Amino acid sequence: MKQAPFRAMNASAQQAPHPNYLEARRLSGLSDDPRGTVTRLEAVPFRLVSGAELDEVQVAYQTYGTLNAARSNAVLVCHALTGDQHVANPHPITGKPGWWELMVGPGQVIDTERYFVICINVLGGCLGTTGPKETNPATGRPWGIDFPVITVADMVRLQAALLDQLGIPDLFCVIGGSMGGMQVLDWAARYPERVFSAIPIATTARHSAQNIAFHEVGRQAIMADPNWAGGAYYGGPGPKAGLSVARMAAHITYLSEAGLHAKFGRKLQDRDALAFGFDADFQIESYLRHQGSTFVERFDANSYLYITRAMDYFDLAADYGGLLANAFRDTRTRFCVVSFTSDWLYPTAESRAIVHALNAVAAQVSFVELETDKGHDSFLLDVPEFYDVLRGFVGAAAERRGI
Amino acid sequence: MKQAPFRAMNASAQQAPHPNYLEARRLSGLSDDPRGTVTRLEAVPFRLVSGAELDEVQVAYQTYGTLNAARSNAVLVCHALTGDQHVANPHPITGKPGWWELMVGPGQVIDTERYFVICINVLGGCLGTTGPKETNPATGRPWGIDFPVITVADMVRLQAALLDQLGIPDLFCVIGGSMGGMQVLDWAARYPERVFSAIPIATTARHSAQNIAFHEVGRQAIMADPNWAGGAYYGGPGPKAGLSVARMAAHITYLSEAGLHAKFGRKLQDRDALAFGFDADFQIESYLRHQGSTFVERFDANSYLYITRAMDYFDLAADYGGLLANAFRDTRTRFCVVSFTSDWLYPTAESRAIVHALNAVAAQVSFVELETDKGHDSFLLDVPEFYDVLRGFVGAAAERRGI
Repeated sequence: MKQAPFRAMNASAQQAPHPNYLEARRLSGLSDDPRGTVTRLEAVPFRLVSGAELDEVQVAYQTYGTLNAARSNAVLVCHALTGDQHVANPHPITGKPGWWELMVGPGQVIDTERYFVICINVLGGCLGTTGPKETNPATGRPWGIDFPVITVADMVRLQAALLDQLGIPDLFCVIGGSMGGMQVLDWAARYPERVFSAIPIATTARHSAQNIAFHEVGRQAIMADPNWAGGAYYGGPGPKAGLSVARMAAHITYLSEAGLHAKFGRKLQDRDALAFGFDADFQIESYLRHQGSTFVERFDANSYLYITRAMDYFDLAADYGGLLANAFRDTRTRFCVVSFTSDWLYPTAESRAIVHALNAVAAQVSFVELETDKGHDSFLLDVPEFYDVLRGFVGAAAERRGI
Repeated sequence: MKQAPFRAMNASAQQAPHPNYLEARRLSGLSDDPRGTVTRLEAVPFRLVSGAELDEVQVAYQTYGTLNAARSNAVLVCHALTGDQHVANPHPITGKPGWWELMVGPGQVIDTERYFVICINVLGGCLGTTGPKETNPATGRPWGIDFPVITVADMVRLQAALLDQLGIPDLFCVIGGSMGGMQVLDWAARYPERVFSAIPIATTARHSAQNIAFHEVGRQAIMADPNWAGGAYYGGPGPKAGLSVARMAAHITYLSEAGLHAKFGRKLQDRDALAFGFDADFQIESYLRHQGSTFVERFDANSYLYITRAMDYFDLAADYGGLLANAFRDTRTRFCVVSFTSDWLYPTAESRAIVHALNAVAAQVSFVELETDKGHDSFLLDVPEFYDVLRGFVGAAAERRGI
């Protein structure tokens, strides 16, 4: 694969990577760079849906496995709002396992011994790809909120441009959950001839009013934090409190009421009786606070603003004359659409709308709604039937593709 | 009625009341006091569930109609988290109609020409009843978070103490939605002989993990605001941004996904196309921001902390040996339990649990689940069938009571 020379554009690599990450990288003979591979896009300026143009674009990604001689075994994994490219290796900041090791790895559904897997930090992200914390070439300082507003389509177009640059003509499979699923849908609509199979999971073809509302709460929490400083907080403490509140609010939407009840109920945290104070009396409080405080160590608040905005803007039908089916007309891509019964963020009805649109153009589509109380986050969790279903779909598609 | 002399204990009355409020008060021959009637509790010290004691307690309330000679026509209306005593008159701060004028007033279900209606600002509230913004007699300064943590039971016990003082022996009806419904349940359990009929609406007998989680997000948003200043913000700007975020997050839980979709969908705010920025592009964003910014004008952030905490602590069964039915053993109260199909904050299953407990002790109980897409807030809104149902129940109970 052809690769542009690495050029450090900013400070995102300055934090020392976690020992778990370093060990995994050394075992693979790779550099210590916490961003994985970092490449400069050659096809610049990169024009955004908004009309704005980026004169310099940096893309950070991870790969696993080997591209075969026919270049027919590439799988693109699309990450969600707070995900990143570290899908199947320890995280460089937290040291925790990759976010989708249940799905991607040797012998897994996305088998890295069979497929060449690539996962790209999205445009606007904060782990190496150009985004608000990276350097604005016009000023030499971080973009902050001078960074242009981006869309899911922009993320997908950047991924396609990177694959062009890497000499990967098409994809055996594009897979992702939540915002990753939005990218899958946009890929299938935008580049139908480049997508052999598509797996949009726990997702939607358009953000609902309730989805937008929750994101708006998160953004307001960040922007209400004086340490946000109008987005120009780099070098300072940053809006940790605001970002933590945003994460807490969002996290509730990733879980189901039944799942929360089963896991936490009204159980108390390290005490036998109510303390009659504002400390975390209940385990659910302590859990949420932990979710908030650990998140701020690994995520950039401005990226949170931009990526939630991109999700809110997502309305695939609007790009195709208001009719979702138009997005998939004449498609030959094989689809497997997956939803979870207890996902109230992107409930099954949203997946059904996608399936109806695909049916309307006689696309090849499997649809599975899985019974679980784990909520939206089910796609990241140990739901055995989920992996069984996808193993069958991916295996059959690979056979058809002759991999 | 006997009434303790009014004694201004703090600054809560200093804001000039809204002209609408003043006009309504003058028409009724009442004072300008924005708190309605304010009384000092005689039965002090008032001991709380936590064990703490309040040496001075002030109670603010509103009444409508006339107590009959038999003292048999009193109705207690219990307000919800962000409600207050101004149930059927213009609000002293916003000037908007009373929060339950659809339910309470001349000719309404709770007919103020037939019943004597009383609505009491809850303990810990911020419109005249003793709470964190009122003066701590030990210091002469506002309590702030030195105010003791309170419970729903404490609110109810204070209401009962006030009714004792006013010479109202029992209640023809106790009615309320949401946290008001919790008070109704506690009243019926704690003082069964004083409650002829009870109407808990859109409520629960115990706060769930998800309920606690949403409240915790709101509290963290408030406490993350530097202007919260550890709760000692009186005289300063106060944590308006944090309280606004808390309100926005909570407000989403008061509406249903379907209702939001019907009302807002993805409609844009005062524009024809996406603006590619962080202003409120969507109507739902503008609406939520408005909800947040108006709320902070009328509500105290510390009260929000204390009252949400009281709700989180609510678990009626826990006070009765872990079995909810025990709370209602031998009750002769007539119950009407109401839930709404689209209420996902306190879904119908929570009302069913209450009804099952009442059935287990052979209580007189009607249960109605009403079909609506208006979510939790349905009890405050124009849902005609809701008022029809309660008109029937209350009328029959009044006939039985001989009113």
